This record gives sequence, C-alpha cells and structure tokens, in this order.
Amino acid sequence: MNSKIITISREFGSGGRTIGRMAAEKLGIPCYDQELIEKIAAESGLIKSYVEENSENVSGGWLSFTAGRDFYGHSLQDDLYRAQTKVIRELAEAGPCVLIGRCADYILDGYENVLKVFIHASMEKRAERIVTQYGERTEDPMQRLREKDKKRKAYYQLYTDRKWGDVGNYHLALDSGVLGLETCADIIAQLAKLPE
Amino acid sequence: MNSKIITISREFGSGGRTIGRMAAEKLGIPCYDQELIEKIAAESGLIKSYVEENSENVSGGWLSFTAGRDFYGHSLQDDLYRAQTKVIRELAEAGPCVLIGRCADYILDGYENVLKVFIHASMEKRAERIVTQYGERTEDPMQRLREKDKKRKAYYQLYTDRKWGDVGNYHLALDSGVLGLETCADIIAQLAKLPE
Repeated sequence: MNSKIITISREFGSGGRTIGRMAAEKLGIPCYDQELIEKIAAESGLIKSYVEENSENVSGGWLSFTAGRDFYGHSLQDDLYRAQTKVIRELAEAGPCVLIGRCADYILDGYENVLKVFIHASMEKRAERIVTQYGERTEDPMQRLREKDKKRKAYYQLYTDRKWGDVGNYHLALDSGVLGLETCADIIAQLAKLPE
Repeated sequence: MNSKIITISREFGSGGRTIGRMAAEKLGIPCYDQELIEKIAAESGLIKSYVEENSENVSGGWLSFTAGRDFYGHSLQDDLYRAQTKVIRELAEAGPCVLIGRCADYILDGYENVLKVFIHASMEKRAERIVTQYGERTEDPMQRLREKDKKRKAYYQLYTDRKWGDVGNYHLALDSGVLGLETCADIIAQLAKLPE
C-alpha cells in the first residue's frame, strides 16, 4: 500500500493523539507516541518521566529553563531534543508511520512523502474533553488548557524557527470539535493513501 | 441532498476560488464570487469596480483609508461592508452554497451548517500560479503576493475581531500547493455532505 509518514501536531485536549491512532489503524501502519518516549529515553539515556515531561513542553518559566544550562548554554533539554531528532528521523526512514507531536513536522522538513497535520478545537470543546476523557481533576480546566498550550508553544518556538499552530506549517488543519474524531481520522487516512 | 454552506477564505494565488467552484460543482450547489460582487453593488448602490477593489482589500494605507471617513468616522467602505453582510446572510439563508472570501466566515458566525475553509500554499507555489494561471505580468511576483496578502489581512482584521489565516477560525485548512486543487475540492465536498 502506498502511504505516507504522518505528523500530528495538536492542541492539548483536541483529541489529536486519538485521531492519530485511529488513522494509523485505518492505514495498518504504526503510531508512535508513548513508544516515542521510550525510544528517546533509550537513545538519550534520560529517564522516561523526564522525557515525557520535557519532550514537548518547556517546563517552568524561561528562567528555570535557562538556569539548567551549563557554561556553553547547553542543557539536558538540548540533549533530549537531539535524541528526539535522531529517533524521529530513524522512524521516518524505516517506513510509513504516524508520529504524534514532538516537533516531528519540523524535524522532517525536506523529507518526501510526509503529511503534516494540525488538530485543534475550541477551548470549550477541549475543556470538556480533558475533564470527561482524560479525567483531569482541575477546578479551572480553561486555565489548565492555557498553561499547556503556552508550554507547547514555547517549546516549539524554541527548537524551530516557526510559530506553533501557524496554518502555513501544515498541509491539513482540522477542527476536531466541529468535524469529530472519526471524520478527522478518515480524511487523514484518505490523504495518506493518495499517490504523490 | 444534505449539504452545507461553505465559506472559502484563501491566500492570493492559492487557487481557493477554483477549488470553491470545483467543490460547488461536485455538490451541485451555487458558488458566489463575481456574482457576490454584482449583488453587493446592487444592494449598496456602489459601482462594481469599487466593490471589486474594496470588498476584501484595504486599498492604500491606513491614512488613505481613514481620510475617506466623514465627521462620524463613517466611510463608503463601511457602507460596502454593511451591504456585503446583508447579501451574504441572505444567500446563506436561501440554501447551500459556496461563498468565496469577503469575511463570509465571520459574517456567518453562529449560523448552523457552515463549513469554514482556509486555502493556503507556499509563496513559491503561489508565485508560480499567479504568473502561469492568472497571467499576472509583474517583475516580482513575490512582492505582488506580499502586497495582496497585506491588504486582505488588514481588511479582515478591520471588520472582524480576528486574525486572518489564524487556524482556529477555520474547520478545515488545506495546503493546495501540496495536496493539489482536485484533492482539496474532494475533501470539501465530502465534508459538506456529512450529516451534522
């Protein structure tokens, strides 16, 4: 089957991860998300929980981020990003797959046969989702969304020269709150099967 | 047939107009673009060429725009926007159709059954298109694109409280340069036929 490497960038709570899994299943190709964390941990020698927390979020503010840098401006987070780049490129070279988050769209710039997807939804729809689906127990889900969005944006902008969520970075952007998860997965699978 | 009202916002040179026509044809519904100009001219009493030039572009700089305002801060462009709003709402209420540009996505906020689409492409692809397809005779097509983008953005931001091209404003955003016009039209037609 002709298929592509699919990168899924997503707003927190938009269901992008689930859509990625559904599309991968429809295409019969692997989807890397948690598996990506394990591979990056193995590659970098960093523990899984650190990779999970820092592979797409700037943790803490700018100060706490810069404070972790050594004399040469190098940090653990930079080691992590390097390992992440290596793992993502190796996976892309191995064959069609779905890659969730972690700047894969940027890391695979210049690669042929990549479909870059962005999944978003309204704050209301995402707040509902993180409470009912992710089991988030927070008094203010909107605030939780704003914090997560801010960390992901900061991380993306730190390691790429692009603005996170900028429409021009993606071949396909979908509002999962309006279109529904199943429809989003269908469109992605359909586009991934098209010949070049 | 179950179908929706489709609004197409597009970057200059992305082929959004053609995609809109193709999708309308697939769905057997009307597509309003030039016809929209005629209807807005009739509604506003303004001549067609003025409507064409000013119904989605801020012409000239901010100064020339404000200079046209009377004592109450009201301008011909405001009359035009009011007529445009009325015509677009009447068309949307009359039944399924494709509406090209002119802030229709914003004007139809709160309307059920609207699919909001944004079509974009790389500068290179758009420059190629405006020269080969639109017959633009310009020494610097990139500069022409930048000027047109700037005018459309300024217009959109003046009459809506939104940022033009912001991914969150659209249910579907497509890179026509990568996906191709036919595929974009197929996806739109397919989504427009889905039940709510």
